[in-house]
Amino acid sequence: MEKIPQWSCEKFVEETYSKAPVPGGGGVAALVGSIGTALSGMVCNLTTGKKKYAEYEEDIQRILADARALQTELLGLIDKDAENFYPLSQCYGLPAETEAEKAEKEEKMQACLKVAISAPIEIVRISFKALKLHEELVTKGSKLAVSDVGCGTVCLKAALQSGWLNVMINLKSIKDEAFVKDVEAELLPLVEDGSALADEIYENVKQQLAY
Amino acid sequence: MEKIPQWSCEKFVEETYSKAPVPGGGGVAALVGSIGTALSGMVCNLTTGKKKYAEYEEDIQRILADARALQTELLGLIDKDAENFYPLSQCYGLPAETEAEKAEKEEKMQACLKVAISAPIEIVRISFKALKLHEELVTKGSKLAVSDVGCGTVCLKAALQSGWLNVMINLKSIKDEAFVKDVEAELLPLVEDGSALADEIYENVKQQLAY
Repeated sequence: MEKIPQWSCEKFVEETYSKAPVPGGGGVAALVGSIGTALSGMVCNLTTGKKKYAEYEEDIQRILADARALQTELLGLIDKDAENFYPLSQCYGLPAETEAEKAEKEEKMQACLKVAISAPIEIVRISFKALKLHEELVTKGSKLAVSDVGCGTVCLKAALQSGWLNVMINLKSIKDEAFVKDVEAELLPLVEDGSALADEIYENVKQQLAY
Repeated sequence: MEKIPQWSCEKFVEETYSKAPVPGGGGVAALVGSIGTALSGMVCNLTTGKKKYAEYEEDIQRILADARALQTELLGLIDKDAENFYPLSQCYGLPAETEAEKAEKEEKMQACLKVAISAPIEIVRISFKALKLHEELVTKGSKLAVSDVGCGTVCLKAALQSGWLNVMINLKSIKDEAFVKDVEAELLPLVEDGSALADEIYENVKQQLAY
């Protein structure tokens, strides 16, 4: 099967628009996050080697390498999310007439739900890491590209929040309370702190662009 | 030349990452906005014809048609932004040794700057319109797709804010004060009200997903 990142942008938009189960919010979150980190990389590529920013050269090289790795991971998560969602979509169709069937369906559903949220969980983690890179870029990146730091930031915030909504929608059906608690304990601070950080960076960019 | 929406998603990400002038923040804003409206369309496609939402059928059909039109406009703005940016990028290289050259360069720059911000201005307008559709979708759309309403909303907010940053970065170089005032008078309320509306919708979605 053709990998989704190989689809044209137009096809990605068309397939999202359609009733087809993928791409949905999860695949969108991964792509928008990957585009956000690509802007992080672009800002680094426009900063590196410039005399004016020589003091940050090492930092910029580190941020470039980190952003590149996150960009690749997020692009890969588009297909991963689609693959992970498939077993759950099949589960919904299982028979549940007898008590035995109901119990078997429920057991399978619970396993599939955990698989289905694994890619969105990764999207939240990665988007947060990428936003931490933008916290540095807003001061260390070339001022000529400061609007791109801002655009990348709002894309990453969208990825972070979309990832979280895609965790939430399945988390509420998971009955393993300890698992649910662990996921929340890890992700809620990332979503809250990451969103607040993104807002700070956006305001900083606007101030730098004010005239 | 191959149109950017025909590029694979992977190529779009790679070209954004690179030092190449396009796609930059403007093209990213248009694509992310188009993806956001595609989710609006998907929610409508998952709602239409369902008995449970029969009372909203007419609204859903109207929202679907509107979202579809905005999706196509935003996709077209990716190339439009690239085309509009080209003359400005050429202007920067014009000679400015003599007073006459300086004056000519400045005059051309001023014209090119106004062209360069026209696509980002459209992106702000369209993203705002699309967010107004999501204001309806969060109550009228299928509850099974409420997380997708939220994902579309945060993508459209990212497009709105990215569009605005791409207006700001060139607006500060435009000397026609009346023009600058008109742009601000139209867009600032869209950016502020649109961002606040997006936050309200996102909170509404989270409440609906709470368990």
